[in-house]
Amino acid sequence: MRTSLDCIPCILRQTLDAARLASKNPTVHENILRDVLGWAGEMDLSQSPPAMAQRIHRRLREITGVDDPYRETKDRQNFMALEMIPSLRSTIESAGDPLLLAARLAIAGNVIDMGVNGNFTEADVHQTINRALTEPLVGEYDEFRTAIAKAQSILYLADNAGEIAFDRLLIEKLSPERVTLVVRGAPVINDATLADAQAVGLDKIVEIIDNGSDAPGTILSDCSQEFQHCYSDADLIIAKGQGNFETLNTEPGNLFFLFKVKCPLVADLVKRPIGTQILAQSRSSKNELTN
Amino acid sequence: MRTSLDCIPCILRQTLDAARLASKNPTVHENILRDVLGWAGEMDLSQSPPAMAQRIHRRLREITGVDDPYRETKDRQNFMALEMIPSLRSTIESAGDPLLLAARLAIAGNVIDMGVNGNFTEADVHQTINRALTEPLVGEYDEFRTAIAKAQSILYLADNAGEIAFDRLLIEKLSPERVTLVVRGAPVINDATLADAQAVGLDKIVEIIDNGSDAPGTILSDCSQEFQHCYSDADLIIAKGQGNFETLNTEPGNLFFLFKVKCPLVADLVKRPIGTQILAQSRSSKNELTN
Repeated sequence: MRTSLDCIPCILRQTLDAARLASKNPTVHENILRDVLGWAGEMDLSQSPPAMAQRIHRRLREITGVDDPYRETKDRQNFMALEMIPSLRSTIESAGDPLLLAARLAIAGNVIDMGVNGNFTEADVHQTINRALTEPLVGEYDEFRTAIAKAQSILYLADNAGEIAFDRLLIEKLSPERVTLVVRGAPVINDATLADAQAVGLDKIVEIIDNGSDAPGTILSDCSQEFQHCYSDADLIIAKGQGNFETLNTEPGNLFFLFKVKCPLVADLVKRPIGTQILAQSRSSKNELTN
Repeated sequence: MRTSLDCIPCILRQTLDAARLASKNPTVHENILRDVLGWAGEMDLSQSPPAMAQRIHRRLREITGVDDPYRETKDRQNFMALEMIPSLRSTIESAGDPLLLAARLAIAGNVIDMGVNGNFTEADVHQTINRALTEPLVGEYDEFRTAIAKAQSILYLADNAGEIAFDRLLIEKLSPERVTLVVRGAPVINDATLADAQAVGLDKIVEIIDNGSDAPGTILSDCSQEFQHCYSDADLIIAKGQGNFETLNTEPGNLFFLFKVKCPLVADLVKRPIGTQILAQSRSSKNELTN
């Protein structure tokens, strides 16, 4: 997905949010914003929004000297999500279609996103979970179920901390022995890294690799060779979150995207309103999602 | 009021809205956005947000060759507001305190603002009018009433087209023969110029001057000598809208600001939530509004 002109004001707002989280010093906030304004004027719009975010967050870490400004936030998000898991697991077990409910909850967990909205509260998460239990899921669930039944190997691309606890509920329903979980190669925003997968106990049930990249999405050319091999070899790829959708929606692979629609541009692209919970097959496997 | 770092993403969004209104050509949209990004990185934050908007809209007119991109919008807004005036005038006449109601309605008219939100509808205007009739006015109405009773000359600084029809209702209650109405010196966003004052018949009841400036606010140093004399000589100045507040809140003068709070920064400054209808005396006349 190309970066739209509409992404620029939004990215600048995110820059400011991130700068304030990484440092208390207003001069640092101003320097990073001016820096980003300077090169945003020259940016290549054919790159995806996560590629731009990657560059901003690298610069932010460089200026502040803080390698993982969202570490504390991520710990809090993991803790908050983990508290909800036991009762949600019971709900899944007693559901008529446990896989469907687990998929819905994994998508609902995608509300925990510091990139798009740093101001969500625990109440927002609970409300989203309640919606997930009642509202219809938009997309191709039957195809998803069939693909899962067929796949020998599943690559599961995680998105955010906190959300990753909800991913665990879905992974538990996928026969975890065939699943490889992929986390980001280095901290960026509140995206899940190995520490987050471990925090929710996913290291006990699946193999975990990182993708070698610090982009808040999956820019294949920026990922490690090891990850790229896993990506090519997987029978099925489950990609969580808008960042993975924005970077992989025109890439090859038997992909299913699970995410909440969070911005007007993605809403236009998938032709669904903001807030919709999407489970969509990639156009490269089924010619439906436009680029 | 200084420009905050938070103003920058908002100003860029406004730039894009304005570029799309002024031209259908996506290359023009991209050029103007890149242009603004380039110099926003170097901007002097001690200037007010309207000073930045002034520069952007000059550049926009230069690139597109369109002198008044909002002319059609302003005509529509004047027409929409004028239709509401006769029944609102009757409501004012039958009110217990006609001046208070006229002031409330003039402030409600400030919802018609293409700078902050280009997407408001006629329904929004009606809803705001209804709120204006029922909700308490925040500020110093008693001081306002007293100042009006005393003043020999009143300078009334208009803000937007459409809104200016509501200003007429208040001006009718001020003994118009002592009122001089001030409009912008040239088109910028949907701010009222002489054509808009004439469209709502204000030229029939008051003297009208322009301030000689194309800023969407009143930057005294950028205004004509004639206006500056009127400003110094007036017993009382009524300044409509956030743009006039942002540029005059630390200037001298016996000023009252009438506006709707439209952005989080102004909300912080006046310590009232977004949407509040404010009638506030300037700190230079009564030490209450911070700079």
